[in-house]
Amino acid sequence: MSSQAGPLIRLRRGHTELVLELLGKHGPLSRSSLGSLSGLSRTTLYEIVAELISTGAVVASPAEPAQRKRGRPVEKLTLNPRAGQVIGIDFARRAVHVAAVNVAHEVIGTASEAHPAGLPWKQRVDLAGHLVDSLAGGALDLGALTALGVGVVGPVFNPGDEATPAHGVDDLPILLREHFQVPVVIDNNTRLAALAEATWGSAAGSREVVYLRLSYGVGGGLVFGGSLHRGPQGLSGEFGHIRVIEDGKPCECGGTGCLETVASAGAVLDAYRAAGGAADDVPALTSALRDGDETARELLGEVGARVGDVLAGLCNAVGPGLVVIGGELADTGPALLEPLEDVLRARVMPISRNWVGLRPAMLGDTAGALGAIALVLHESPVLSRYPKTSTSKEDA
Amino acid sequence: MSSQAGPLIRLRRGHTELVLELLGKHGPLSRSSLGSLSGLSRTTLYEIVAELISTGAVVASPAEPAQRKRGRPVEKLTLNPRAGQVIGIDFARRAVHVAAVNVAHEVIGTASEAHPAGLPWKQRVDLAGHLVDSLAGGALDLGALTALGVGVVGPVFNPGDEATPAHGVDDLPILLREHFQVPVVIDNNTRLAALAEATWGSAAGSREVVYLRLSYGVGGGLVFGGSLHRGPQGLSGEFGHIRVIEDGKPCECGGTGCLETVASAGAVLDAYRAAGGAADDVPALTSALRDGDETARELLGEVGARVGDVLAGLCNAVGPGLVVIGGELADTGPALLEPLEDVLRARVMPISRNWVGLRPAMLGDTAGALGAIALVLHESPVLSRYPKTSTSKEDA
Repeated sequence: MSSQAGPLIRLRRGHTELVLELLGKHGPLSRSSLGSLSGLSRTTLYEIVAELISTGAVVASPAEPAQRKRGRPVEKLTLNPRAGQVIGIDFARRAVHVAAVNVAHEVIGTASEAHPAGLPWKQRVDLAGHLVDSLAGGALDLGALTALGVGVVGPVFNPGDEATPAHGVDDLPILLREHFQVPVVIDNNTRLAALAEATWGSAAGSREVVYLRLSYGVGGGLVFGGSLHRGPQGLSGEFGHIRVIEDGKPCECGGTGCLETVASAGAVLDAYRAAGGAADDVPALTSALRDGDETARELLGEVGARVGDVLAGLCNAVGPGLVVIGGELADTGPALLEPLEDVLRARVMPISRNWVGLRPAMLGDTAGALGAIALVLHESPVLSRYPKTSTSKEDA
Repeated sequence: MSSQAGPLIRLRRGHTELVLELLGKHGPLSRSSLGSLSGLSRTTLYEIVAELISTGAVVASPAEPAQRKRGRPVEKLTLNPRAGQVIGIDFARRAVHVAAVNVAHEVIGTASEAHPAGLPWKQRVDLAGHLVDSLAGGALDLGALTALGVGVVGPVFNPGDEATPAHGVDDLPILLREHFQVPVVIDNNTRLAALAEATWGSAAGSREVVYLRLSYGVGGGLVFGGSLHRGPQGLSGEFGHIRVIEDGKPCECGGTGCLETVASAGAVLDAYRAAGGAADDVPALTSALRDGDETARELLGEVGARVGDVLAGLCNAVGPGLVVIGGELADTGPALLEPLEDVLRARVMPISRNWVGLRPAMLGDTAGALGAIALVLHESPVLSRYPKTSTSKEDA
């Protein structure tokens, strides 16, 4: 939200963040204590506090009588426990997922609803509104809603509060602002799932995460130094379009032999059926595995090895860290993940071998919505310095 | 340099950076103007200014008589033009390179000297000292030296001011501190070359850079958001050890079929000789090319295609940006770079194709030393907010 802000606005924001950080860390403080802790001038501090009180982010209350000495009572300032709430919405291909956090950044609810592919955007936004209302049964004070994080399918140019999703939803930011009356931040939902896993999921606390999603599409996201890495045009994380087969099958992206052509859920099911197996979806494949089907086991072993090879190259390039595997195909479990890990460890540089970790994702379908919240918490100038959840580390 | 600093020290550093930034931006300022521009309290500001004057970073001088009105003269504060100088040293395998910048971050000199491989570290540090003295003939005020940036060969664990280079030079930081009496920051020299190219070289002004060095080793570095990306253990940028051939030749790293086994200067010269060519080094190969040698052209075409394939996968993963090719092998020119670019563009995702740029590196042998300076300028808490060079963009 800072792309167009001038230097003075940014300076003020830095001071505001500092005040919020101190209130979060030290609890109730008088203006005078806040002044000496922050090093800000009386004028600057009083202006910032007045603004924070007027937006509801901070509340002022008289100190306990025991703490008063003489003269007029000293007001103590605290973060407003009902303010600072953020909602995340993931507009997936055939479902809407929502999630919400309170001021302490604890997840207080999630909800999902499937819909037919191609549902018009107006109806998807309405559906998201209904789901949010279902969360708000008392626990959620929507009046204190500060911002909305949103995930969408496909590349997002200029991700953030002036995002342009590539897949033709130009007016989505407008629809959302009309409905929710708060600033909106948009990014790709798979990349947001990576951020969610690094914030609340199986990579919680890790600052260097490679997240790979093996679903009907194959994609991912990179978290470096605790922040989402997007690349200049928001085109990072396209692991599914790394070429793994010379003269391979054509891919939806326009290329050939991409990882997605061999490791997507659809590609794996096609290959399984071509080898004589019978499975319409990943759960059917997983249950064939459980029944000892060797064809399924061999196929997933080959796919795992292929994926492990790509991940090894990637870990050599960006540095070893925690690798998280999500998406429906990860539900097939060890048949995929064990050969994947074997090849990953065998092919990463020997010096890096012990620094690579591998875990299955744990947030499931709501990862995108949770990641949209994490994005707002990381990027909003007012919220970014709020107290973090216990699992997420402080930004560098 | 901040890893062990407590929150109050970090807060004070932020204020100090702000004061330096304002002085850099607005030129000479009175304490009172500095107070209103910064929003800092009188007490905080006066303490910071006193400390900056005592370290020599800022000088106080009386205002011009015309500007005085009445009473005691108002002092104006300015950045000390002789302070803030940084030296970079690159301890390469067989040479030491040094470079220095002045307070405006302009490069004011570089020097290099070759030495036998395996020269003891004490002698290498002495050699560096002599080279630095050769730079100091009047232009360089070593008394104002603030920090030393250092590049070394091989992985560097915990890069920064408490770095441990992997290749057995435990006492290097101590030797350097004894000799130069200033804080020392160490990182891998190839990664530093990446930062130098992004700061002063062919990627100047680009915030997303993939730098690949094709020399007798193959490595590289990643610049994301204008900063060096290291990975948690300082093991990023090992592009040379991405596997490109199944069951390929053994590699120095302990793996097999690594990019380095086909695209290092040594591998290319070996292959050229195996195909009947005669060349002892890259200049001889380049001159064979110039004489129309088809064997050399075909070989470099194959190597370029192989490298382009790896780079395409990398651009799909981290997002397209500027790709910079350095190292001796890049001197072979279009015979290598044209097929490399063709394959890179053909194999990156179609949607990313127009966002990828390719340039040869331009800083040559001193890139590591210059990158070491850039590292200090980016990372030192006091210097990081100094006015940047005209070509480097503001940090995000």
